[in-house]
Order: sequence, then C-alpha cells, then structure tokens
Amino acid sequence: MTKRIIIDTDTAGDDTIALLTALHNFKVEGVTITGGNVQFDQQVENALYTIQVAGKGGQVPVYKGYERPIFAIGEEQHVTVEDVHGKDGMGDSFFEKAIQRPESGHAVDFIIEKVKEFPGEISLCAIAPLTNIAMAIKKEPFIVQDIAHLYIMGGTNNALGNITPAAEYNFWVDPEAAKIVLHSGIPITMVGWEMCTRYSVMDDDDHEEIAALGTKGSEFFINVNRVVKKFNKEVHRLNGTTHPDTLLVAIAADPSIMTQSSHYYVDVETVGNLTRGYSLVDINHRLGKKPNVRVCEAVDRTAFKDMLLTVLREID
Amino acid sequence: MTKRIIIDTDTAGDDTIALLTALHNFKVEGVTITGGNVQFDQQVENALYTIQVAGKGGQVPVYKGYERPIFAIGEEQHVTVEDVHGKDGMGDSFFEKAIQRPESGHAVDFIIEKVKEFPGEISLCAIAPLTNIAMAIKKEPFIVQDIAHLYIMGGTNNALGNITPAAEYNFWVDPEAAKIVLHSGIPITMVGWEMCTRYSVMDDDDHEEIAALGTKGSEFFINVNRVVKKFNKEVHRLNGTTHPDTLLVAIAADPSIMTQSSHYYVDVETVGNLTRGYSLVDINHRLGKKPNVRVCEAVDRTAFKDMLLTVLREID
Amino acid sequence: MTKRIIIDTDTAGDDTIALLTALHNFKVEGVTITGGNVQFDQQVENALYTIQVAGKGGQVPVYKGYERPIFAIGEEQHVTVEDVHGKDGMGDSFFEKAIQRPESGHAVDFIIEKVKEFPGEISLCAIAPLTNIAMAIKKEPFIVQDIAHLYIMGGTNNALGNITPAAEYNFWVDPEAAKIVLHSGIPITMVGWEMCTRYSVMDDDDHEEIAALGTKGSEFFINVNRVVKKFNKEVHRLNGTTHPDTLLVAIAADPSIMTQSSHYYVDVETVGNLTRGYSLVDINHRLGKKPNVRVCEAVDRTAFKDMLLTVLREID
Amino acid sequence: MTKRIIIDTDTAGDDTIALLTALHNFKVEGVTITGGNVQFDQQVENALYTIQVAGKGGQVPVYKGYERPIFAIGEEQHVTVEDVHGKDGMGDSFFEKAIQRPESGHAVDFIIEKVKEFPGEISLCAIAPLTNIAMAIKKEPFIVQDIAHLYIMGGTNNALGNITPAAEYNFWVDPEAAKIVLHSGIPITMVGWEMCTRYSVMDDDDHEEIAALGTKGSEFFINVNRVVKKFNKEVHRLNGTTHPDTLLVAIAADPSIMTQSSHYYVDVETVGNLTRGYSLVDINHRLGKKPNVRVCEAVDRTAFKDMLLTVLREID
Ligand SMILES: [Ca+2]
Ligand SMILES: [Ca+2]
Ligand SMILES: [Ca+2]
Ligand SMILES: [Ca+2]
Repeated sequence: MTKRIIIDTDTAGDDTIALLTALHNFKVEGVTITGGNVQFDQQVENALYTIQVAGKGGQVPVYKGYERPIFAIGEEQHVTVEDVHGKDGMGDSFFEKAIQRPESGHAVDFIIEKVKEFPGEISLCAIAPLTNIAMAIKKEPFIVQDIAHLYIMGGTNNALGNITPAAEYNFWVDPEAAKIVLHSGIPITMVGWEMCTRYSVMDDDDHEEIAALGTKGSEFFINVNRVVKKFNKEVHRLNGTTHPDTLLVAIAADPSIMTQSSHYYVDVETVGNLTRGYSLVDINHRLGKKPNVRVCEAVDRTAFKDMLLTVLREID
Repeated sequence: MTKRIIIDTDTAGDDTIALLTALHNFKVEGVTITGGNVQFDQQVENALYTIQVAGKGGQVPVYKGYERPIFAIGEEQHVTVEDVHGKDGMGDSFFEKAIQRPESGHAVDFIIEKVKEFPGEISLCAIAPLTNIAMAIKKEPFIVQDIAHLYIMGGTNNALGNITPAAEYNFWVDPEAAKIVLHSGIPITMVGWEMCTRYSVMDDDDHEEIAALGTKGSEFFINVNRVVKKFNKEVHRLNGTTHPDTLLVAIAADPSIMTQSSHYYVDVETVGNLTRGYSLVDINHRLGKKPNVRVCEAVDRTAFKDMLLTVLREID
Repeated sequence: MTKRIIIDTDTAGDDTIALLTALHNFKVEGVTITGGNVQFDQQVENALYTIQVAGKGGQVPVYKGYERPIFAIGEEQHVTVEDVHGKDGMGDSFFEKAIQRPESGHAVDFIIEKVKEFPGEISLCAIAPLTNIAMAIKKEPFIVQDIAHLYIMGGTNNALGNITPAAEYNFWVDPEAAKIVLHSGIPITMVGWEMCTRYSVMDDDDHEEIAALGTKGSEFFINVNRVVKKFNKEVHRLNGTTHPDTLLVAIAADPSIMTQSSHYYVDVETVGNLTRGYSLVDINHRLGKKPNVRVCEAVDRTAFKDMLLTVLREID
Repeated sequence: MTKRIIIDTDTAGDDTIALLTALHNFKVEGVTITGGNVQFDQQVENALYTIQVAGKGGQVPVYKGYERPIFAIGEEQHVTVEDVHGKDGMGDSFFEKAIQRPESGHAVDFIIEKVKEFPGEISLCAIAPLTNIAMAIKKEPFIVQDIAHLYIMGGTNNALGNITPAAEYNFWVDPEAAKIVLHSGIPITMVGWEMCTRYSVMDDDDHEEIAALGTKGSEFFINVNRVVKKFNKEVHRLNGTTHPDTLLVAIAADPSIMTQSSHYYVDVETVGNLTRGYSLVDINHRLGKKPNVRVCEAVDRTAFKDMLLTVLREID
C-alpha cells in the first residue's frame, strides 16, 4: 500500500521537484504551505501549479499555514530568498495561474485532523521552516504519538550553513519552531544542507541529460532551476543546482538511498548573536543527551539521480 | 447595551473574583483557559465552578486553550504557584465539581470565531499568561483590527515584580506571548502588579466587612483568599489579599476607576538571564519609540472596593 | 584619623562636586579615571582642574585607567552623554587647563599598589562605570580582602533607570564590570539612581542659596551644573540638578546621612535585549541568594545638603 | 636573525611539545601562562619543567597571567580537562619540580613591555585561551600596532568542536577574550581544531618511530602523550595523539608547512545557549564583513612531522 504523507513546503525552486517526487511515490494527503522562500501567496500558487504539472490538479488539497515565523513580532517579516530562486520562486518563469485553488481551512488544523483520521499512518515531509509543524504540535500535543515519521530537510551536521556560515535557511528562519519540533518525541530523520551539497548537485552534464528527456517534467525542471544555478556558482562556489528537498523526499520514499545514518542528539540555537538557527549535532556524544534524531550521513547519489530522472521522465 | 467580552484566565485565586465581576458587568461571551497558576484541568474546573457560584451555570461556555507557554519545549512545564493560591488554586477549598463541562473546541478558535462574528465589538480581558491571545493573533493575524480593546493584567511599571524581582508572573510565564501581543496593534490597557499592591489590597478590616455581607458571594471570596493572605504577608510583606485580576476587570467595566493613565512604549524582555519577563515601560520616552499601550498609573480605590462589594453582595 | 580613599570617576558634572566633597572629607590617595560621561582626556582634565579648584593642585595624583568598557570590541565606543553635562562635561564652561598633569602609571596598577601598601585601610568611591575596579580585581584577585569598603553610585533599586528605562548609566556602560565587582566579595554600599532623584535634587531655590555663598566653590558649582539643569527638566521631568556622585561621597564620609539601608542580593543583567545593565535588587529574597550589597534606601536630605554647602562655602 | 616570540600557553599535553618546538626555532623572549587545561600552578610548573627538558633552564622567563577567564564571576572556575592530559597535564608523569622559578611580574605587563621594547619585532604564539592576550590589548591598546604577528591555535573552520559540538576548547573557555583579540586589528593566523585532527595526528606507527629516536626529547613526548591517546580514541574516535599547539608553532616557524590558507571574516559567539565559543568563519563571504584573519586550510603533514621529529631528536 502506498504510504500517506503530508508535504509542508515553502514552495519555490527545489520544493517543486520534491513535490513532483512525492506525488509520484506517495499518497499525498495534502500540501501545507509555510512562510519561507518567497512571498507567501506566490508559494501557494507555486504548489498549485506544480500539482497541475504532475497531472493531479484538483486531486491534492493545498492548505495555507503560518505566513511568518512564530516569533515574528508586529509587522516583522522574515528574510525571503528571491535571489536564490527567482522573483516568483520558479526561476523567473512566471507560470500561469493553476486552476485549483487553496482550501479555506488552516494548514495546522488539516494536519491535526489527518493525523487523527489515520493515527500512526501519516508521515510528514518538512521541506520548509518548521512553523506549521511546530504550531500543530503545540495546538494538539497528543498528535506526536500518532505521526508515523517526520522527515526534515534542515540544519547541518557540523558543516557550513547556507544563509549564514552558522545556519541553514529552514532552521534559521524559525529556530524556535525547529526546537519545538526536534524535542517533540516524533521519530525524525534529518537531512542536512551538507548532504545536499555533497550528493544532490546536478551539474551541466546532468542538466543536459535531464533536458534530453524532452518531457514536460524535464522542461519544468530546467525552467525552475535557471536562477539557482547562477546563484550557487556565485555564492556557494558550487557548480550546479542543489536539491535538498527532493533528496529528502527521495529518502522518505526509498530509505535505501540513505546509505549511512546515525541517531544523535540534535538541538537548535535560538539565542546566539552569530549562531541563531545553528543546528547542534552531537556526533561524539559530548553532551550526554539522549539521541532524538536519525541524521543522514551518506547518500547513494546514483540511486537518488535515478529516482529524480524517473519522476521527470514520467511527467509528460 | 452590555459590552461583549471574553475572559482569558488561569483560574485560581483572584481570577475567580475577577470572573464574578465580569459576569456581573458584561455579556461574557466565553471564558478561555490558559496555562498558568495551577494544574490546567484544575483551572478549568475552577472556572466552571465560579460560573456556577454566579448562578450562570451552563450559560457561559468555557474553552480549553494552551496548557503551556509557546516555547515550553518537549515535556518542559512552566512554574505553577500553588504556594500562592492553595493546591486547588481556591484557597484549599476543594469545592465539588460543577455541573457544566468545558466545550470541545479550542480556545483560540473560539476567540477567532467570536471576533469574526462581532467585528469591533468584542473586548478581551487577559488575566493570565498571554499564550492564548498571542496564538490567536498568530493564527489569524487580521483579528487584531476587529478586537475592540484588550485589557491586560500583567507586567510592572518600573517597579518590583512578584515572581522574580524583575518580572510579574503573567509576563514571566510566557514573555514571547506577551511580546507578540504588545506589538500586535490591538488597543491595549495594561494594569501592572504595582497598581495591585498600591490600590487593590484588602486588609483584615476589609475582609471583615466582606464577611459581614453574609452572602454566598462573600463566603466564596473569604474561602478562595485564605491561602494568598498568608503568602502575601510572608513573601511580599503585604498585609492583606491582592486583587490584580479583579482590578483589571473593574477598570474594563468602569474606566473612571482608573484615575490616571498614559500611553507609553511597552516591551517585554525575552532573553535576559535575570530579567526574562521584565516589562519595559518607557515613561520618559528615552527610546523614541511610538507608544503602544495605555498604562494605568492610579486607581480610585474606593470606587474599586465599592464595585467589588456590590458584586459579592449580589451573589446570593 | 582621616580615612584613605581612592575616587574612581568619569569626571564630568556631579563628579566634580563629589571630588570636592571627597577632598574636603578624606585623605584622597589618588583619583583614577575611567571611561564614561565624556571624552576620556577631557575627563582627565576635569579631574585635574577640580583638584586645583579645591586648592590641592599637585597634591593628589590622577591616574588614567580604562578608556572604554571591558567588552568594547575593536574600535567600538561606548555612549557618552555630553547632552547631560555639556561638551566639556563642565556645563560648557571650557575652563583653562590645570597645571597638574596626570601620572604615567596605569590606574589599575595604582589601585593595586595602594591597597597593598595600606591593607584594610583604603576605601574606594566608584562614581563611574566600574571598569577600572573590575580590572583591578581581575588582575590581582587577592586585593578584595584588603579593600576596606567599596561605595558604588550605580544601578537602581527596582526603579526607573536614567539612560534606558531599565538601566542606570554607570551599570549600563559596563555591566560586565559591574557584575565582576558586585560578586567580588568586597563589602559594598550601593546608592542607586532613585536615591539621587528622591533626595539629591537641588532646585532653583537651592541654587540661589548656593549662589549666595559667593565663594569660588559656589561659583564652580553653578557653572558646572548649567547644562544638566536643562537636561533634567526636559528628559527626566525633574526640577533641578541631580547629585548622585556627591551623595555617594557624602554617605561614605558620614554614614548617618544614609538613614535606611538593607543588605540584599544584587546582580546585573549583561545579556538582555532591553535590560542590559539592569540591576536586580532582590528586596523580598525571592531568589534565595545570599545578600552581597548594602543598599541605600533613604537619605537625610538636610544633612546631605548641609555637607554640600559646607564644602562649597569653604572653597574660596 | 632568529625571530622573537612570546608563547602564551596553558601548559599541559601538547603545549609542552609546542614549547620545545618554539625553543628550537625561535628566540623565545618569554613564556606567559594563562588559565586553561589544568590547575594554574601546575601549568606554571609544566612550562618550567619543559624549558629544563629543552636544556634552557633559567634562560627563558616564565610569567604568570590570568588564572581564569575574563568573565569568571566571583569564585567561578572554568572547566579544566585533566581527563584529556592527565592529572598533572603531563600524562600522569608527575615530573620533579624544575629549578627555575616563575618571575614576579604579571604576564600582561611583560607582554606590553616586550612589545614596547621591540616594536614590530615580537610575534605571539597563543596556544591557550586568549585571556592574557586580550587583557594586554585592553590595558595598552596601542600595542596592536607593534605586534608583528599573532598565531592562534583555536576555533574551528565550520567543523566539529572538541569540548562541545559547537566549540573548540581555547575559544570556549574565554570567548570574550577571543572576540577582543580577533577584532583587535593585529595580523592573525588561525589554526583550527580541524587542521589538528586532519594533519597532526600521530598514530601508533608514528609513536614507535618517535620512541625509536631514543632521545630525552622522544622519551618526554611519549610520557606526556600517554593519557591523551586513550582519551582521543574513546571520545573523539581518533587513532593517535593530537598536536594542535605544536602544529601552530611549526607553522609560525616555517610558513611553508601551511600549504593553503585564506583571509576570512572570523568572529566568536559569546551569547548562545548551545554555541558559546563557536567560531564563525565566513568562507563564502555571506556576511559582507572585511576579512580579519588568515585561516589555515591545509598542511604539509610530512613537513610538520619532520619538524617535530627534528626537535625531539635534538633534545638529548
Ligand atoms: Ca523548501
Ligand atoms: Ca490570573
Ligand atoms: Ca560619574
Ligand atoms: Ca594549549
């Protein structure tokens, strides 16, 4: 039987490819949108459009969640990253509006209800700041026992961050949410940014190979990744596009893609002047705390790329 | 026409008298419970029992809200104060269970729906940590424009705190919630702890006068305040019982009880080692920030006491 | 026998009158300058000039100490307050340069050597940020046992600050220094800012009375206080000049001027966003910590004013 | 001409080998001791004994500096690491007392005076918490222009720490000192902990090779490193002994040992709950700040080992 999941996403750039990958591999119960990469309403549109690209328009509900981090005070806005993903978060593709419209309920209530409806069956794939997931846990704490698994793209395992030297973007945008989630007791698998830079980068040859597929899926991939490619070269000194969200979903779909992992104590800095959003991963058990997260340490890149290409090939 | 209000309360001690005062003066649309003074379920029972004492059992719905502060992580519990209010929060009276039961919906959803139902008409009286109010604002940010007024018992105006030297209990339990609320744009009146110690203390003579009323209301008052009287003498060096929550509701009901007030910039410390929950009130405009709160600076104690005695006299 | 003291001062405004008061009442072993009120070298000149005004030019050495707070990083400068005391820190009097020049040694080494020379005999009057005192303690920790007493003008006792709502200037400029000093084990008497505003204010009548003395001392007082008078009215809503430093020295000289005091646990916030420099004074023993400071709670204003006028009268 | 250096050290374990290496390569003007690895007086003895082992007893002065971090408050002690280096910091060798005794002056005054004596000529090798160096800078800020170079063993370059996951020991013990030093304007070369684990580890074969030298130097090396070998295996999962301090001195002596380095903006976290002492190294220039440190990125391990063996061979 296909596994039921909910995808929580700040849909822009690689979130879309991750969403295609999820729609291909899972029974996606719903897509929930959390504030992150680009303007909130744009993210909602991006999710709806991506579902349409996958040929599932109208079949997978999209729910709007928290537009800003828990602790955004007054009119305070978090930092969005149009420089990474394009103004529309879609590589400046400016796609037409999808036919499907978002649901009227709140993302957090949807998550709570679905977990209640299928206790122990729903897994969550979090490929965005963890605001929605944290707020769902706070509103109905008992759901932590009924979530099958929580896959998180976020943080780093003792490695360089992407938005600051100390922090990865998803944890940095809402570190309080990350802290709530990491200590919730839900079984968690975390794929950090350094897994993305080591194993998920698609270089020029890969892009040519994808373009050569000649499908609607491959075309979509090329379009969406146009801006990030340039950004990665200039800022991260990386030759190619990065696919952290897709990697996370791929691992959720096929655990054998994650060839090495360990359980560690993981926590998030919320207070530091330089280190807000830093993810502590205690790989040598220096702090004597109980492990709370399975951390991905190595990936079968070939298997990952195969899955990605399969998804893009079949969308036509 | 009687004003519509919602009371948000961690029902124990003076919360009950405040609730009686509210039921006497307002159309109370509902009572929402937030984690604070004593065990959460006990607080729910205390609210239900108090409504029954007021002769309104079954007429005013009680909603359960957030049991713990926003940033209570994992199993972390906030500090409760059974030493102040008795084990049951009712002066160790151990009253029987009320007939009315709490509603099944969530306090925050109730607040949001009521504000939507009566835009511009609902005032909130917050006599507890501000968790529920903050979470309502975060879930549906637009409600801030439709709340008539928010009365807050909390913080201090450049004066000694009660739970630490730097902080008053309601702000200290959930300073992040207080910060979210204070900067929300809702019109706010704040009555700090020092107003309570200066104007609301009922000493032995006052207690005798209240006991002499010989009503069910006065008997209830005497019972509920039995423990706090001892606590105040030993800890705060105060001779009598303190009535911060009742004072707040009295001011909401009759603004003339507040004889002096000013608009100041008010903020809350969330980070300090010694000062978590400290309320900054910038009475000399040193920080150059726009005032966001009307702060109560003096009270007509006679008028306040009159209102209190009227309420207790009429409950029989 | 006259008591030996060292005055540590950021000489501007009331520091000068405090210095006159000290020279009148004590064997002042030396004056040490710490960064604070105005430009450092100006402070040094102000101290030298004040000694000359007292007729003791060349008899009391002046040592330069730390120009900036301990934790001023790189080129970082602390906030000076020329708006309070005038550009020269002397009410814009722009006095001529004194004949006496500062010593070549470092203030901190001078303090250490003097305490070693007269173990148990030297008291310190700190009327500036506590940088020099803290650094002396850190360099030679054993001196804490040989300092007779440390009088500190700084902090507040659960009252409004002067530089921010939460903090008094001396503690705010170098809270880390204040923390080091308060926990050093030295016997300390602290006179907070609220003692100054309650008991030390000299209003128009007082100024007329002082002017009428017609001495060089009284003329100096009037000149030096010209700017602060205006500042106090506009910013602190105080009618008159404030004399925190003089009050501190007066209490050191004649303890009977302090009519009420208690030993409390006192600490300083170094971390808060709003509360850096806040002085916690635990008057109700809520934290269960051992008292470390004698805190001044009331002053005999008449006796204080008498001492001030005596000092000014005799300088001619 | 041989370069003049001062070594600032918390002499225990690898500090001793670093000291031997320095005595072999430089004109060591003096050794200054700062609080760190083990009990302070033991560290002083270890430095004196090591100088004697090098055959230079009485020729190189040893100065006692700050025993504890700048912001150690009251009786507060920093964490020492006898578990790493043995109770005596010398692999539990419990060597006899050296004949040479420490000087009476303060380490910080010695540093200041030497820099004044030889402006532009003195380099500092800091292989300990940076307390002494920071305090020297604060006491006489102008020396920063006259220090030839500052070599720092400390921090990590976006890699796992050793005392916590986030922090390396020297930065963690006194992060405020590290911050003061890093932003001082002195030309700095930093060798982080990850350089040590990648390039300086001496495994069983290396130890056999060293033992086979059969000199007093090699015997000393084997003895001193007995405890750390076990510790590294158990805690850091490293097979061999680690030589961060020796690597730093080797690079100072022969820059060609450092085969790759870049100038980056480096800062230290002083505030974080999890990240106190974390060294931010902004290798992708994300923060737009001016580089202040040359960071070692690769080492010629063979050249380093050659230098180490040369030093140990010649001590006999
Ligand atoms: Ca994402
Ligand atoms: Ca309450
Ligand atoms: Ca002063
Ligand atoms: Ca060392």
